Amino acid sequence: MDGALSGLRVLDLSRVLAGPYAAMVLADLGADVVKIEMPGTGDDARAYPPHVAGESVYFMSLNRNKRSLTLDLKSDAGRELFQALVRQADVLVENFRPGTMARLGLGYDELAALNPRLIYAAVSGFGQTGPYSPRAAYDAVLQAMGGIMSITGPEDGQPTRVGTSIADITAGLFSAVGILAALNKRQETGVGQMVDVAMLDCQVAILENAIARYAATGQAPRPIGNRHPAIFPFEPFDTSDGQLMVAAGNDTLWARLCAVIGRPELADDPRFATNPSRHQNYAAMRAALAEALAQRPTADWQRELDAAGIPNGPINDVADVVHDPQVQAREMIQEVEHPVAGKTLLPGVPIKLSATPGGIRRPAPLLGEHAEEILADWLGYDAAEVARWRARGALGAG
Amino acid sequence: MDGALSGLRVLDLSRVLAGPYAAMVLADLGADVVKIEMPGTGDDARAYPPHVAGESVYFMSLNRNKRSLTLDLKSDAGRELFQALVRQADVLVENFRPGTMARLGLGYDELAALNPRLIYAAVSGFGQTGPYSPRAAYDAVLQAMGGIMSITGPEDGQPTRVGTSIADITAGLFSAVGILAALNKRQETGVGQMVDVAMLDCQVAILENAIARYAATGQAPRPIGNRHPAIFPFEPFDTSDGQLMVAAGNDTLWARLCAVIGRPELADDPRFATNPSRHQNYAAMRAALAEALAQRPTADWQRELDAAGIPNGPINDVADVVHDPQVQAREMIQEVEHPVAGKTLLPGVPIKLSATPGGIRRPAPLLGEHAEEILADWLGYDAAEVARWRARGALGAG
Repeated sequence: MDGALSGLRVLDLSRVLAGPYAAMVLADLGADVVKIEMPGTGDDARAYPPHVAGESVYFMSLNRNKRSLTLDLKSDAGRELFQALVRQADVLVENFRPGTMARLGLGYDELAALNPRLIYAAVSGFGQTGPYSPRAAYDAVLQAMGGIMSITGPEDGQPTRVGTSIADITAGLFSAVGILAALNKRQETGVGQMVDVAMLDCQVAILENAIARYAATGQAPRPIGNRHPAIFPFEPFDTSDGQLMVAAGNDTLWARLCAVIGRPELADDPRFATNPSRHQNYAAMRAALAEALAQRPTADWQRELDAAGIPNGPINDVADVVHDPQVQAREMIQEVEHPVAGKTLLPGVPIKLSATPGGIRRPAPLLGEHAEEILADWLGYDAAEVARWRARGALGAG
Repeated sequence: MDGALSGLRVLDLSRVLAGPYAAMVLADLGADVVKIEMPGTGDDARAYPPHVAGESVYFMSLNRNKRSLTLDLKSDAGRELFQALVRQADVLVENFRPGTMARLGLGYDELAALNPRLIYAAVSGFGQTGPYSPRAAYDAVLQAMGGIMSITGPEDGQPTRVGTSIADITAGLFSAVGILAALNKRQETGVGQMVDVAMLDCQVAILENAIARYAATGQAPRPIGNRHPAIFPFEPFDTSDGQLMVAAGNDTLWARLCAVIGRPELADDPRFATNPSRHQNYAAMRAALAEALAQRPTADWQRELDAAGIPNGPINDVADVVHDPQVQAREMIQEVEHPVAGKTLLPGVPIKLSATPGGIRRPAPLLGEHAEEILADWLGYDAAEVARWRARGALGAG
C-alpha cells in the first residue's frame, strides 16, 4: 500500500500509550514503524488486562501496523545495533523519563551526531525542561494536574477523570503533528530536530477557552455536568422514553428549534433571542425546552430535528458505537486477526486521505517477532549476521 | 520567526472549533493562515461568551496567529476573489456541512482543477460519506454519539460530557496530522489530495482499548469514576488534608509504593503481586492504600512519592494550572495583548521544536482586519485594486 508516509522509517522506543499512539498514527498512514522493546517483558502495556489467549487487548489496540524487535540497550552490543538502526531512521519516538536516554549514551545530541537528519520526538509527563521535568507520570496524574478533571463531572460534583486516556492520546497527537512539521522543515534544511512534547503542556492546550474564561472572570470554572459553558442550548434533555443531546449552536438553529417543538414565539422572546441572552436566562430556557421535549419519544424528535438541520443525537455506549451504521460505513470498526488472540475489534483510521488512504495492514506484533525481517530490511543483514548479534546478547538473553 | 511551517499558505474557512483548532495548530508552527469569514457577523464563535469589550474570549482562544478577510462567497465577485486565493494556497480547511462548498461551486473537484497542489481538509461531524453525512453536528452531539460520555462519570452514574470540547479538539488534531501527511506526500508527487476527517470517527479512534475490551468481554464499559479500567492502582486517594492522584502503573512501582506507605509486605502478597492480581483483588488493594494514605497530609506524600519515582499529583483547578511553576516554566500560559480586549491569557504552544520553535506572534484578528495586507501578500494587489473588489461586493456589503 502506498501510504502518505510510505518510506518513512520510525524507531518507536515508547511504552504504554502516548508515544505508542503517536507512532501508531504514523504507522496507520504508511510509515514503517519498528517497535524496540525490552527483552523478556517488552512494553509494560503487554501486562494490562484484559488478556485473550495471554495477549493484552490494551497492547493490541495501540500497536497495530508495527513490527517488534527486542534490544538490550544496557548491553554494548544492544546499543551498537541500536545505533546502526538510528543511522537508517527518519524519526525516533521515546517516552522515557527525561534523562534516561542520555544516561544510556543515546540522548538527542549523541544520536543527532550519528544521523543529523533524525527527528527525535520525546514525549514525557512534564517535558524536557522545568522543575518537574524528572518526575514520572501517567495519564491519571496529568489529567489531575492539567485541569481537565476540574471542569468534568456532575454539576457541583467531584472532579472526574475522562474515561479514556485523553492526556496520553492528545500528547500522542501533538507529537505526531510536531514530527510531521519537523519533517516538512527537513525537506528544506536537510536536518532534523528535537520534538519535546509534555503531556502537561498538552492538557493546558486542550483547556483552550477555559483559560481565557478564567482570565476574563477571575473564577476557575467548575464541573457543570452535561451542559456547555458558553453555548445555549447544548445539553441532553429527557424525552418520553429516553434522552437526547440537543445542540443549537447559533441563533438560526435556536429559531428552528423553537419551531420544531411547537413554540415559535420563543424565537422572538427577547430573553432568548441571542446566545448571551439565553445564557442570562438559562433556567427559563431549559425549562421551556424540557417541558416540550418530554412530551414525545426520542425517535420522533430525532427525525424532526434532523429534518430541520438541528444537531442532535443519542448517548451511545461502546456497543452502540460498534454497531452504528455511520461508524460501520466509515470503516471505523475493523476486525483484525491476531495470530495468537484470534479476531479482535480495533478502531479504524480516522484520517481519510483521498489519494493515499491509510489502513490496518497487520496486527500488533508478538514480542521480538520481526527481528530477522527488520534487520534484513533496514540493515541488509542475513540470518547468520542476525544470529551473531543474538549470540552477542544485543537482542537480550532470551 | 522561522517556523517549521513558515511559507505554508493556509485558507481557513472554518468556524467555531474543530477546523479553527486544526488551522491554529498549523499557524502556531509558522504557517500563514488566512481566516475567511462571512461578512457582517463572521465566525459564529465571535458570539460565544464571555466577551471582554465586546470581543469573545472563546474566539480569541482559537484564532491567534491568523489574519482575517471577509468574503461573500454567495456573490460572483466573492467567489472570483476566493478562487484567486485558492490558486496561491497550499492548504484549505473548511468545516461546513458536507455538500455546502460544492453547492457554491467550490467543492474539492473544482478547487483541485484550479490548483492541483491544493490539500483540501474537510472537517465535519460525520464525514463526507455514509448515511449521516449530511447531518449537522456539534461537539456535544459527537461526545454523546461517539461513546466517550458512556465511559466518563461517577461510578454507576450518568454518562458525563468531558468538560472541554474534546470531539472538536481531537478532530482538529487528526486533521492537522492528515494535512501534514498529505504535504509530505506532495513533496514526492507534486499533487495534493482531500483530507476527510469526521468528528465521530475521531471519537471512535480515541476510545482505543475500550473497543477491544468490549470485543473481548462482550460488555460495554460503563463510567467508573476516577479509577482506571485496566491499571491498578491508578486513582485518587484521600489524605489527611486533601486528595492525591496515585498511579503505580507497573509491578516495580507497586513494590515501591508499598515501601513508601510502610507496608512492604504487601509487595510480596500474592493477591497484589501483579497487575492482573491487583485487578482481581481490587477492593482489598484499595482499602489497604486508603487506610495508609489517610494518615498524613498531601504534601508529605507528594514528597515521598516523588522521591521514590511514583507518579502522583494534586487535582488542580484552572487557577492552579495557570499558576503552576512547571506550566509557567514551559511558557504554557501566555499573556497576549488584544487591540480591543486588552490583555488576556492563552495556552502556549505545546509542540516544542528545538530548531524552529513555534509561538504566538499575533492575537486573534478583528473581523476583516487584514484585507489589504492579505490581498497584497498573496495576490500582489495595491490599495486601488482592493478598493475595486470591495466596490464589487466581494468582501461583503459592510
